[in-house]
Amino acid sequence: MTYVEKLGALRELMKKEGLDAYIVLTSDAHATEYLPEYWQCRTWLSGFTGSAGAMVVTLDDAQLWADGRYWIQGEMELQGSTIQLQKMGMDGVPSLQEWVKDKLPENGTVGIDGRTISVELFRTYQKEFKKKKLNVRLGIDLIDMIWKDRPPFPDGKAYENDIKFAGKTRQEKLKSVREKMKKEGADCYLLASLDDIAWLYNYRGTDTPNMPTIYAYTFITHSDVCLFTDEKKLGELKSVLIKDGIQIKDYQEILTFLKSNSIKGNIFIDPNRINACLHEAIPENLTVFEGQEIVAWLKSQKNNVEIENLKRCHARECSAVAKFIKWVKEAVNNKEVIDESDIHDKVDEFRKSLENYICASFTSIAAYMANAALMHYHPEKGKCAKLEPKGFLLVDTGGQYHDGTTDLTRTIVLGDVSSEMKKDFTLTLKSHIRLFMAKFLYGTAGINLDILARYPMWENGMDYKCGTGHGVGYCLNVHESPPSIRYNPLPAALIKLEEGMTLTNEPGVYKEGKWGVRTENTMLTVKDFTNSDGTFMKFEAISYCPIDYRAIDKSLLSDCEIKWLNDYHAKTYETLSPFMNDEEKAWLKEETREI
Amino acid sequence: MTYVEKLGALRELMKKEGLDAYIVLTSDAHATEYLPEYWQCRTWLSGFTGSAGAMVVTLDDAQLWADGRYWIQGEMELQGSTIQLQKMGMDGVPSLQEWVKDKLPENGTVGIDGRTISVELFRTYQKEFKKKKLNVRLGIDLIDMIWKDRPPFPDGKAYENDIKFAGKTRQEKLKSVREKMKKEGADCYLLASLDDIAWLYNYRGTDTPNMPTIYAYTFITHSDVCLFTDEKKLGELKSVLIKDGIQIKDYQEILTFLKSNSIKGNIFIDPNRINACLHEAIPENLTVFEGQEIVAWLKSQKNNVEIENLKRCHARECSAVAKFIKWVKEAVNNKEVIDESDIHDKVDEFRKSLENYICASFTSIAAYMANAALMHYHPEKGKCAKLEPKGFLLVDTGGQYHDGTTDLTRTIVLGDVSSEMKKDFTLTLKSHIRLFMAKFLYGTAGINLDILARYPMWENGMDYKCGTGHGVGYCLNVHESPPSIRYNPLPAALIKLEEGMTLTNEPGVYKEGKWGVRTENTMLTVKDFTNSDGTFMKFEAISYCPIDYRAIDKSLLSDCEIKWLNDYHAKTYETLSPFMNDEEKAWLKEETREI
Repeated sequence: MTYVEKLGALRELMKKEGLDAYIVLTSDAHATEYLPEYWQCRTWLSGFTGSAGAMVVTLDDAQLWADGRYWIQGEMELQGSTIQLQKMGMDGVPSLQEWVKDKLPENGTVGIDGRTISVELFRTYQKEFKKKKLNVRLGIDLIDMIWKDRPPFPDGKAYENDIKFAGKTRQEKLKSVREKMKKEGADCYLLASLDDIAWLYNYRGTDTPNMPTIYAYTFITHSDVCLFTDEKKLGELKSVLIKDGIQIKDYQEILTFLKSNSIKGNIFIDPNRINACLHEAIPENLTVFEGQEIVAWLKSQKNNVEIENLKRCHARECSAVAKFIKWVKEAVNNKEVIDESDIHDKVDEFRKSLENYICASFTSIAAYMANAALMHYHPEKGKCAKLEPKGFLLVDTGGQYHDGTTDLTRTIVLGDVSSEMKKDFTLTLKSHIRLFMAKFLYGTAGINLDILARYPMWENGMDYKCGTGHGVGYCLNVHESPPSIRYNPLPAALIKLEEGMTLTNEPGVYKEGKWGVRTENTMLTVKDFTNSDGTFMKFEAISYCPIDYRAIDKSLLSDCEIKWLNDYHAKTYETLSPFMNDEEKAWLKEETREI
Repeated sequence: MTYVEKLGALRELMKKEGLDAYIVLTSDAHATEYLPEYWQCRTWLSGFTGSAGAMVVTLDDAQLWADGRYWIQGEMELQGSTIQLQKMGMDGVPSLQEWVKDKLPENGTVGIDGRTISVELFRTYQKEFKKKKLNVRLGIDLIDMIWKDRPPFPDGKAYENDIKFAGKTRQEKLKSVREKMKKEGADCYLLASLDDIAWLYNYRGTDTPNMPTIYAYTFITHSDVCLFTDEKKLGELKSVLIKDGIQIKDYQEILTFLKSNSIKGNIFIDPNRINACLHEAIPENLTVFEGQEIVAWLKSQKNNVEIENLKRCHARECSAVAKFIKWVKEAVNNKEVIDESDIHDKVDEFRKSLENYICASFTSIAAYMANAALMHYHPEKGKCAKLEPKGFLLVDTGGQYHDGTTDLTRTIVLGDVSSEMKKDFTLTLKSHIRLFMAKFLYGTAGINLDILARYPMWENGMDYKCGTGHGVGYCLNVHESPPSIRYNPLPAALIKLEEGMTLTNEPGVYKEGKWGVRTENTMLTVKDFTNSDGTFMKFEAISYCPIDYRAIDKSLLSDCEIKWLNDYHAKTYETLSPFMNDEEKAWLKEETREI
């Protein structure tokens, strides 16, 4: 089927169902970031392959909203589809919900697969839709009816996450959850996010790309626990879970279970992580209490076992990235033909034999010079740039290990760099160091700290169009929320930073048509000291990998910042040299020399 | 009646009404900050005179919640009343709503005068109360039934705020309000905050202390406008308003008007500024749309006429404060006997003959040495400190003028100061300057900027337990919201900073038993420049008054910070000298000399 034919088939169904518009979002029923093919309805319908985007089809129109990362790619991929690109965030571009409200007649009807929209996003839509008294139908998946060769629902398997990795038992975690439920006044708690559930029950799985989880829901009361999943996924884990007091019900039973639930009292949900269909199924005997996901908050505070594992895991990962850097510099220098699309596999080659390695935590971004100005560029074989012995190569890469998840970016100097490039590299480094050196009172959230990194950019009339940092999972999602370091008030950026939270620190400079620079490490939040004014917190580095001194303009750094870098590099040598042979050690010594 | 007798009478009524608890808040029906005596129910019932605090009476208990400013004062004033002080914010102290939930039996009944609680605060209470299924009755003012000599409801008068002060006509303002209503999808808009209504209809009045307004509500649709007030307050203004298309209805009619309203559509309210009784009266034919007050947001962006007036008004005010500083330094040096409680009147003496002056915008805080460590200390004649020719005197003062509202704090050196005092003074100045020098992308909110001022404190293991800055009204409330500069996520701190917003900048150091330092100026938000990365904003000073160089340790300031101060002082001389005679000018020259 061509995209035009798909739209035609969809419109036929819409007419039958009496819909004036049908919205197709990029999500599964669990707000999962990396989707298996089964859930890639938007890509199937539009041909647009970006990782985010939302689509509206009316009887005579079709529009796709994509953010700044995807404007160029979107224009290209939508050619010939009759679908128009809406450049989200550009001045004068309406939001999807505004567009729908303006387009549809009063009392019109909109359809959405309510599993793919969070309660909170649905409210944002409804606020706009109400202005024109639009009706919404949530319970319909029209794509499923026209997608004849839809891939099967993932049939991955779950496996035990050993206590030596988890650090806490299921029972200990459930106890903490129930304590927090009690504090929130919740009699029961509905949870749908796959990584939260995997963390809680100490399993990992193979359903979802880049994140080792399986499809599941869970429902927790103060006496019972129910895990909803396909029991074929559990295998021998099933009896282990049952022995630990966890009842197993089928994945498909969740809605009927909820609807028929006769418990009286309060149910806790996170409206950003529970989909609109689940919400609709909550019976009237339960009063909904909303808040930020309890399990996500507990999971974000890594325990001591996890922290020690993370440090070891990052050391291994960084040794692989360092070896890759050595390799790529030498290969380019030796005039080997390498293009950007070779790099993901090459980095993976360096890490795949490492202890506890599972898979990449995302597809590496490898972007040479101007391509790196496209913030989330993904090279395509044959269409991408070849590396030359000059300028910057930006590599953003990460791995899943049984003992941690990694995310690291280095901007690698392949040869000559101009003074403007050095200035941008050094400003990025200054931003990075300023955030790393932060001392802050307990109670501070990511939204307060963002400016520490961003300020050197703003002082120079520049800005990077993304957050400064995100939470990092532990053998789970590489983008974990909370926490978040950004200046706009997303819930994860408003959460207080707690001991044990791990975050990236990734400021950058992105100059269209020229180059992109980003330096990214993972940091751990720790207590510094307590006095009569309160408890002060600080960050510690978890990832140690050389930052290319060849692009540093030392005159732009303060003495404190230079000292931070020299200390960081000394620790980098100490951390990575045990993974290296003599030749590699000599190289690392040079890369981590004092400036 | 003694306080014990008042509680007894209240409990008798509670029994009759079947109430297990009765809550008395510090508010009127409009969330006004400075209350006329009629509305001071909590003070009347408890004897506690602080400006904030909430009280719960049960049949066998009475508790009063006060924040850190009032712990010492609260303990003293509550002696013998049988009322216990709850130190809000202290570790282990429950919130009012938690305490009520724990204290009352399941299905118990709570009474509140629903006019004195905002929709939002009421929700916070309800969330807790629901955990024990408590019932709440909102429509009862029990205090009124036992307060036999309750002062009469304010009978102040309104008067036209001339266009030369307002800068925009009522019609222009209503047009902007309706445009924003349209954008929000609102068919009508209910507004209760007295300063917002006074701004919208270009009047001022004499009902409320420190803020020139009258008691009123307003209801706006796209075709009609209704002002609810006592028409005796309006006098000749009544016909002016009617000519401008504003219908006048009696203040008391608001609830019946709302309840009987047959308009179908959406009603816009700000749940932080509309009280629970008003909310309850909204009929079912109206769908409630909630958001931040439209008028408050428009009012916060001062127009060009207001800005030019503000600059002139602040110049006059600052000349008075400068003359006061000269006087107090000389008087103390000449061994005159002055105590803290003399200062409010003395400052007022310097400003009362100035053009356009109305009244003080709040009771001045005058605090010598250790008293200044109590952040909102108010001296009482006979019980307060006498000034000595050494150490710090902190004076925080402000005035209402027809062309503006002012708020300024100076920490005045009366004689010798130690090196620790100089360090604290200079760190405060550094914080103040850092925020003043901020360059920030449009889209930034106060919550993002707070750390610029707070960081020099945190780096030194210190913190001030209050926000860094608040919005300032224009011949209205000295504490205007939005905007707000603070690190906790109050709605006003999450609002983007817009051109024309005026804010205070007031970091400080407060050392219990030693001294307090605060330096406060008012700033204007302006556009700096626009480039491909966005529009960058900055602050400009509006208030110019000497900052005491005698307590500055220059070695703690950077070159940029020293330059900022010298430029500020040069502009201070230029701004204030026209108000001064030769002797005063010579003094000012010395006070504003370069460091």
